[in-house]
Amino acid sequence: MKFRTTAFLALAAACSVSLAVADQDTSQISFPEGYRTWFHHHSTVNMTGHQPDGNTGLQHVYANAAALEGLKTGQFSDGATFVVDRFKYAEADNHSLTQGDRKVVAVMVRDAQRYAETGGWGFQAFKGGDPSQQAVKDGGKACFVCHIPHADNNYLFTRGVN
Amino acid sequence: MKFRTTAFLALAAACSVSLAVADQDTSQISFPEGYRTWFHHHSTVNMTGHQPDGNTGLQHVYANAAALEGLKTGQFSDGATFVVDRFKYAEADNHSLTQGDRKVVAVMVRDAQRYAETGGWGFQAFKGGDPSQQAVKDGGKACFVCHIPHADNNYLFTRGVN
Repeated sequence: MKFRTTAFLALAAACSVSLAVADQDTSQISFPEGYRTWFHHHSTVNMTGHQPDGNTGLQHVYANAAALEGLKTGQFSDGATFVVDRFKYAEADNHSLTQGDRKVVAVMVRDAQRYAETGGWGFQAFKGGDPSQQAVKDGGKACFVCHIPHADNNYLFTRGVN
Repeated sequence: MKFRTTAFLALAAACSVSLAVADQDTSQISFPEGYRTWFHHHSTVNMTGHQPDGNTGLQHVYANAAALEGLKTGQFSDGATFVVDRFKYAEADNHSLTQGDRKVVAVMVRDAQRYAETGGWGFQAFKGGDPSQQAVKDGGKACFVCHIPHADNNYLFTRGVN
């Protein structure tokens, strides 16, 4: 476990640097319309100090029907999609952290063949939740680096269903 | 605004003390089956130091269809229901806060006449998410105290739809 944690941190740090562009392209991944009504799986907060620091924020993970089925079965069919909806967090009255402005809508789409270079998942992200502002230009390799330590879980941070 | 904040903190502190039992009863409010597939509105974290301290945790707010409609129109029909799903939070690797065990599933059900003593909302809560472990025994008065400062928003902390 200790090795895994160390490896994870090293990889996480690497996420903030520019990596080689993949041969695959993810520019065709469009904004996940309707994701706000998908299944909300869990939320986490990446506090100040988190690496990569661009990923700080209060973030919610949503799963479409195919992704939810995959969480139950361990098998993800093509089309299974997760969204991470990340907001700035604010320190409010009474020792609470609350949501601020939306930072990004990040997407993982399952297509085992098309995105074979990144574990069968295609990565794209939309700055500020703006469908016209694609952020991923490297075929998803920088995103994928942080998911590699979760190879035993289909490269997902998200596990099970609560 | 300053007065309001001060008043809120005073009321929040009061939530942790025992208040008079209301004439109304909320023991008939049953566990909100299926709430995990309802609309996820937002999440907040009540950090250590929050008052009442029993409400510390990472919590998600879910709205059923009638409650979502109410957030859009400002008018809540009887049956509109919100759930706060509260978890312990844990400090994980890489400066992240993650979900721990479920602490409580708290419910607000709209019935303007039946729960007139508490702003038209009926309050109940289920310890650990166990449908057999009702926590609210005072007709909802202790819960309601923290909602009084939000009288201008139908007694809801939750506002709008993002």
